[in-house]
Amino acid sequence: MFNTISIIGCGLIGSSILRAIQNKNLSKEIKIFDLSKDVIIYLKKENICSNISIDIRQCVRDSDLIIIATPLSSYKEIILSIKDDLKKGTILTDTGSVKKEVMKIIHNMNLKDINCIPSHPIAGTEESGPKAGYADMFESRWCIISPPKNAAEQPIKILKSFWEAIGSKVKIMTPEEHDEILSLTSHLPHAIAYNIVRTVINVEDKLKQEVILYSAGGLRDFTRIAASNPLMWRDIFLDNNENISKGIDKFTEKLQELKEALNDKNGDKLYKIFNSTKELRKEIIKAGQDTSKPDFGRKKD
Amino acid sequence: MFNTISIIGCGLIGSSILRAIQNKNLSKEIKIFDLSKDVIIYLKKENICSNISIDIRQCVRDSDLIIIATPLSSYKEIILSIKDDLKKGTILTDTGSVKKEVMKIIHNMNLKDINCIPSHPIAGTEESGPKAGYADMFESRWCIISPPKNAAEQPIKILKSFWEAIGSKVKIMTPEEHDEILSLTSHLPHAIAYNIVRTVINVEDKLKQEVILYSAGGLRDFTRIAASNPLMWRDIFLDNNENISKGIDKFTEKLQELKEALNDKNGDKLYKIFNSTKELRKEIIKAGQDTSKPDFGRKKD
Repeated sequence: MFNTISIIGCGLIGSSILRAIQNKNLSKEIKIFDLSKDVIIYLKKENICSNISIDIRQCVRDSDLIIIATPLSSYKEIILSIKDDLKKGTILTDTGSVKKEVMKIIHNMNLKDINCIPSHPIAGTEESGPKAGYADMFESRWCIISPPKNAAEQPIKILKSFWEAIGSKVKIMTPEEHDEILSLTSHLPHAIAYNIVRTVINVEDKLKQEVILYSAGGLRDFTRIAASNPLMWRDIFLDNNENISKGIDKFTEKLQELKEALNDKNGDKLYKIFNSTKELRKEIIKAGQDTSKPDFGRKKD
Repeated sequence: MFNTISIIGCGLIGSSILRAIQNKNLSKEIKIFDLSKDVIIYLKKENICSNISIDIRQCVRDSDLIIIATPLSSYKEIILSIKDDLKKGTILTDTGSVKKEVMKIIHNMNLKDINCIPSHPIAGTEESGPKAGYADMFESRWCIISPPKNAAEQPIKILKSFWEAIGSKVKIMTPEEHDEILSLTSHLPHAIAYNIVRTVINVEDKLKQEVILYSAGGLRDFTRIAASNPLMWRDIFLDNNENISKGIDKFTEKLQELKEALNDKNGDKLYKIFNSTKELRKEIIKAGQDTSKPDFGRKKD
């Protein structure tokens, strides 16, 4: 499918893409760059990739597809470093969770004869690093592509085929649509998960051991989400702050409504609140985005 | 271990207790009562229990251990119905998630020669009904017992042995301690899960399909928790409203702090927030209340 693919950043997502490309045999050559010594040591030890560059410019030279899989805050520096070494007609993409800011950075770079098409594979776990990656991470998961308005058709088709080849279903949307939808389905839920864990760990120390022991009643599911990479989430929140801030306002409004019902001991209202959420769950299961298998009880632990 | 055990309410929890008692052979006889025709039809069809009473008074007569596994709001009526038919010295317990209000109800009944000792097995899934029950639900899970101050030692020991026999680890604490801890580890997390799902389903319809499709980025985990039995949660919120309301206030305060950091684009503060929650997760895993196996990516679906 490709002669050479370069992956910049080989953590959870980058190393999973690497493994998937190898598994599906999608490129004659795969080149890797990562700033972290630990990542390089791990990749060498596990013999996952034979072509590890120590020079980012050397890594991207002659590549047909370049995938940036690093935190959003590093994009500017990375693109500045590589921009003079990109092959004419190459496809430059990424895996970041916010798109509007990325587009701004790319636009300001004024890259010539380069097909910059941001991607966002909606996949991952709460873990970080190449050790946690796995080849079928993108299997049946959505990947959103946000091409700029003036993008050529052919490179979009090629990038779409690439994500499909590693198992993803692809949807094309504008950066604005992407950022609004993801603020609701991913960024706000993460804000809330981090916030509840912070609320609970701030209670007096006398209860701390008890809180840990009895966390199976709901809390532990939030701690799982709140264990995700803090650097990645800082960058997402900085880049999508307006949408997330709006989401927090809506959330707070609804929470005050719940609190009022609680303080008024309004059973009818509480029942209505607790009964209103089941439908969405059913639709998510129907859409194949989760299974109906109960997990909350961790039957198979 | 017992001659006769009676279970009032045979839904997710009651039917799991029933199955566990049978599996471990803990009672010569087990008697069941449930108001729901569907539950009775299911139990008969599956041949799970041969002794299904249509009269609640007949169900509890001669029993050594009576377990109420119904929503909290039904306790008063149930205890009023059975109080004149209880065997002298019998142990009366429950499975409810709030304890202080239960103790009040029991205290007001002024039951003579009956050992009322509330229990709370911290177990379950987001599903409801006897079909979703299973025998090893209580395996390695905590069960909290909250005996009244004047309770006799022997029945506490027997009840503790019963929960241990079906796999639980038992902790004894006061109803006040129980309700405060559970408001943090279970009730507040559920309030938040319901609230985020309500926030998201209230966005304009144009985004609804997208929200469902891309829910794997975090939202789907909340919809799972928010799919729990609404009647049960209404009762928990009514009975533990003061603790939960306090928890909501603390949560809102923290969320405003996060929103300020977001509006100020304060990266250092955001990083600090996202990095502060990892420790609790590690301690929960260490305490055996969850596994470190990544689940957020649903590897095995």
